[in-house]
Amino acid sequence: MNEATARVLGALRSASGPCSGEDLSTALGVSRAQIWKHVEQLRKRGYEIDGEPGGGYRLESIPDRLYPEAIAAHLETRWLAQTIEHLEETDSTNRVANERAAGGGDHGYTVVAEAQTAGRGRLGRSFFSPPHRNLYSSSILRPQLDTSAAPTLIPSAAIAVADTLTEELGSRDGVEIKWPNDLLLGGRKTCGILMEMHAEDARVGHLVLGIGVNLNSDPSQFPEEFREQATSLSAFAGRPIDRISFAARLYSRLEAVLDEHARGGFARLRPRYEDYFQMSGRRVGVVQMDGSQWGGVAAGVDDEGMLLVDREDGVRARVVAGDVTLAKDIR
Amino acid sequence: MNEATARVLGALRSASGPCSGEDLSTALGVSRAQIWKHVEQLRKRGYEIDGEPGGGYRLESIPDRLYPEAIAAHLETRWLAQTIEHLEETDSTNRVANERAAGGGDHGYTVVAEAQTAGRGRLGRSFFSPPHRNLYSSSILRPQLDTSAAPTLIPSAAIAVADTLTEELGSRDGVEIKWPNDLLLGGRKTCGILMEMHAEDARVGHLVLGIGVNLNSDPSQFPEEFREQATSLSAFAGRPIDRISFAARLYSRLEAVLDEHARGGFARLRPRYEDYFQMSGRRVGVVQMDGSQWGGVAAGVDDEGMLLVDREDGVRARVVAGDVTLAKDIR
Repeated sequence: MNEATARVLGALRSASGPCSGEDLSTALGVSRAQIWKHVEQLRKRGYEIDGEPGGGYRLESIPDRLYPEAIAAHLETRWLAQTIEHLEETDSTNRVANERAAGGGDHGYTVVAEAQTAGRGRLGRSFFSPPHRNLYSSSILRPQLDTSAAPTLIPSAAIAVADTLTEELGSRDGVEIKWPNDLLLGGRKTCGILMEMHAEDARVGHLVLGIGVNLNSDPSQFPEEFREQATSLSAFAGRPIDRISFAARLYSRLEAVLDEHARGGFARLRPRYEDYFQMSGRRVGVVQMDGSQWGGVAAGVDDEGMLLVDREDGVRARVVAGDVTLAKDIR
Repeated sequence: MNEATARVLGALRSASGPCSGEDLSTALGVSRAQIWKHVEQLRKRGYEIDGEPGGGYRLESIPDRLYPEAIAAHLETRWLAQTIEHLEETDSTNRVANERAAGGGDHGYTVVAEAQTAGRGRLGRSFFSPPHRNLYSSSILRPQLDTSAAPTLIPSAAIAVADTLTEELGSRDGVEIKWPNDLLLGGRKTCGILMEMHAEDARVGHLVLGIGVNLNSDPSQFPEEFREQATSLSAFAGRPIDRISFAARLYSRLEAVLDEHARGGFARLRPRYEDYFQMSGRRVGVVQMDGSQWGGVAAGVDDEGMLLVDREDGVRARVVAGDVTLAKDIR
């Protein structure tokens, strides 16, 4: 959207009643014919605006799209998502953000899509990404960070998502983090986080932090293999979710968590992670990359974000996210 | 080079005397006119071949180019550099290898250039890369590795370079590794290593390991800012270096070191690193990313490849490569 159209939208948004074309024309310093053209532009974009060229205009509704100007109206961040690239459909927001990063994209630059045709999850899995229902967002980060500290940005981001879900629900009940980086509502996956890193030697060059949250999708429409294990915030809450304000609040919480990580690392965030940690005291099976398996009781995570598991032989093992997949809980 | 031309080259290489066109034609199952065409192809590529269509052919010399077929004739690796892409000139072999990796390039795929117009070093520095003198090589690696273990591949690669330099010189005298990843001959930089990593979550997706070795360049031709601190193997040894066999031997040693790293990590390679470690017992100044400085005595490296420095207050500090640059030695 161009700047002049955005200014017309801003004026309509902040007006308490209808705005006359003449008032808009005077306030914005453009002709009434131009105002009409901007109104038409906004209507094409999905904004419902009552009124005719001769009379007054009133903004009746905004479209259910994650438009940058819509998110910006709610956004309270300093650097995250200050620039948003909105795509109606793409293969993967992470791929696009990586491309933008390679081209010099700024710290905080964010790509949002209404649909992904090849949404990606951890370990090469896919992330089901139907149109106009959810949030698929990938942000470029350029932290001053050693590669060894970067992986803990993932559980840190999970805290921000969990806090936003809690705020939306008005309660922490049923909001859990499944190590390392899945968000569960009532035991079902609602969000996935996928971080990609580009580094030179031991220094992070850029990161792409991808977050997919099931907001309004209907679990009965999920592919059969996900149906039992996945849900959406809307299905859990029993009401539709305002995607735009959810996105804006998520970015605020995410920025705060990332700033905290920059100040003190994951060590300062760990207690907040453990508040949501779904596995504490439960039996878990660990499948190593080499295929060997063993069991134990999850004890928590450490300051490096590694899972601590008390093995049957009494040894406390540290489990690296990349090295294992967790077998389903054995109770 | 196409496969038939390579077969003609192979026959000429392995022959003890001149090969008649007729013998070649029979042995390779192609017409004598075809043999002539392949010989002409080889001559265009810089191979000196005596002989005329009617008579016998003899390979007199091979060109001083890092051609894949030339390196392959000396190569004893199982997986590294089995495919070599040779470029007469490029901006940066690391950049090309990254591009190939993004396109699915295999573990071990290697890009070699005769010249780089924008050769890169650590921390955004440039690497002076004049044509036809040196080795500029970047390999794609796809190890099963956690990101936290990846940085130690850099000092591991430095061991392989140091061993190859030692083999070429017939002596370890003057061969040193300057932490973290510069190779020195007689105290002057001869090689730089730059590793780039792409990771998803805590798992390495691919790495690009770039190695630039000054082999035959003339230090008097170096840019003034490098002249005092840099040299080449040829200048140090006082004789020209066969770039082709050096490259092949380096790949063999590099593969062996990477295989050893895969089996036991840097812990198994550390003693070999410390044999070349130039700083032991010397005073070093450490400049942190935040600009603060402090001094101490270098004690060695640990199993994570971090520099151990005994500070004046008696504390042994671990220095991360990415966090600091070393001030020049204070003796």
